[in-house]
Amino acid sequence: MCSNCDYTIHGAHHHFGWDNSIPPVATVAPGSTVEFECLDSSGGQFTPASRTADVATLDFGRINPVTGPIVIDGAEPGDALKVTIREFKPSGFGWTANIPGFGLLADQFPDPALHVWSYDKNTLEPAAWSTHGRVPLKPFAGTIGVAPAEPGLHSVVPPRRVGGNLDIRDLAAGTTLYLPVEVAGALFSVGDTHAAQGDGEVCGTAIESPMSVVLSFDLVKGANLRTPRFTTPGPVTRHLDGKGYHVTTGIGPDLMAGARVAVGEMVELLCREQGLDAVDAYMLCSVAGDLRISEIVDAPNWVVSFYFPRTVFE
Amino acid sequence: MCSNCDYTIHGAHHHFGWDNSIPPVATVAPGSTVEFECLDSSGGQFTPASRTADVATLDFGRINPVTGPIVIDGAEPGDALKVTIREFKPSGFGWTANIPGFGLLADQFPDPALHVWSYDKNTLEPAAWSTHGRVPLKPFAGTIGVAPAEPGLHSVVPPRRVGGNLDIRDLAAGTTLYLPVEVAGALFSVGDTHAAQGDGEVCGTAIESPMSVVLSFDLVKGANLRTPRFTTPGPVTRHLDGKGYHVTTGIGPDLMAGARVAVGEMVELLCREQGLDAVDAYMLCSVAGDLRISEIVDAPNWVVSFYFPRTVFE
Repeated sequence: MCSNCDYTIHGAHHHFGWDNSIPPVATVAPGSTVEFECLDSSGGQFTPASRTADVATLDFGRINPVTGPIVIDGAEPGDALKVTIREFKPSGFGWTANIPGFGLLADQFPDPALHVWSYDKNTLEPAAWSTHGRVPLKPFAGTIGVAPAEPGLHSVVPPRRVGGNLDIRDLAAGTTLYLPVEVAGALFSVGDTHAAQGDGEVCGTAIESPMSVVLSFDLVKGANLRTPRFTTPGPVTRHLDGKGYHVTTGIGPDLMAGARVAVGEMVELLCREQGLDAVDAYMLCSVAGDLRISEIVDAPNWVVSFYFPRTVFE
Repeated sequence: MCSNCDYTIHGAHHHFGWDNSIPPVATVAPGSTVEFECLDSSGGQFTPASRTADVATLDFGRINPVTGPIVIDGAEPGDALKVTIREFKPSGFGWTANIPGFGLLADQFPDPALHVWSYDKNTLEPAAWSTHGRVPLKPFAGTIGVAPAEPGLHSVVPPRRVGGNLDIRDLAAGTTLYLPVEVAGALFSVGDTHAAQGDGEVCGTAIESPMSVVLSFDLVKGANLRTPRFTTPGPVTRHLDGKGYHVTTGIGPDLMAGARVAVGEMVELLCREQGLDAVDAYMLCSVAGDLRISEIVDAPNWVVSFYFPRTVFE
């Protein structure tokens, strides 16, 4: 329960995909604070008892439910919906999977894999990966957005200018997010909560974890945003940067190819230096490592770098 | 002077472009520490008295000199050259330019611009941008590499698997860099020193600044690296993250297009909120802001984010 919330939207009120004809489950005034119960991105198909074999039977029709939608009273196309991210209430259970066909190196990792996490939901101490290392946690909402103007049902997988499956790891407590509104009432939904993720979400999944999230809503009339933007109240990486980074690079004329090389080199480094299986290294990269564009101007070659925090193993 | 150095390579010993037939200026044993005097990337064409009109007369044949090359005794193709970056000795003078035809948004910024910086070379206090803000400094070497195996003269502009114009802002004091060796003796050179730069170097220049750099060399025999990699001893952004970030996004199926939208949106935000001219905002983005790939797996749309540190203005 949220003592300071005006509304609670229960997890039963979820939908699959974005469609501006989905009936809203509540209408709230600007200034309201709302708690949303969010399912994990498997919609409850994975549990603490799940094993790798369960990846094969995953029902993709039930992937990535989002809780909502709610109407923000007075929101109109052209406004920005200001979402202040106040608090996460993590569950302590999470999972990370390599899902065949999905992820930056899908061609190199054709076999399913599943890692089940158990973390302390009160202290949020770094979560153990077997005896190999510990991953610092920073909960955030992977999918957060409003309904697009275009009629019909739109897949939840790709993010859009109205937000959605942004998977930006700094959409965490304290951050203020501004989303372009395209329909009357905005029709806001949220889900796909993660206990930790690096920039890129390179294997395709984070520490996927059900949790509740507390958000406040306001409107910026006529902001006419083209894309989402946000402001963080302070540093974004101090939970994991204390011991520095190992960094690999990909250099060439295509940013996607560079990203693939940089991540592949890090997988190789972690296997060699930490004795990890390749798919485990790949999943750890997804939950803890960051893809950065180091330079994008020295034509014809760009540098994409992958930063893996040394604190995971040290 | 460097009291702990085995050699000093003076700035007069510089070359333009990479060519494994350039005669080495010194041969050093593994374990040696060497000080390099580095010219700025204009090769001294810009001075504290330079103005925007001087950008038009820049001689591109004298761009980006690197000091060297030196032979590391015993280096062979297949080895990694381990470069420990020990110290920078900044000059206090720097410049940032918008050079027509160069930079991520070259089409939007066709006119030349030049900003001349003066910073405290002893304290490295954040450097003032007129009365608008202050940019935290972290000196590093923009161009650092060894000669490619392929004969002939190769432009210094694009980085390669042997390093070169990497423009990775964390190649700063304390970092250990590993470069793939392609020719006997490695033939190492360094230059293009920067007092500060963000990930991306989006306008095409950083705070370009002549300075000396002290490096130690070792060999990792038979490492067979495919691309450069490096390790940082600690956090990489604490000089600028204390007050958080403003962040803009670009969302779509092409990372380059996403990067362009994210940076363009930040330029627009800085103009509106700080009253900056657009080209000034663009140059500030280049010296202080970071391009990150927030997600690269939610097909068909990726999210590129541009992080601008609030401390510059707060």
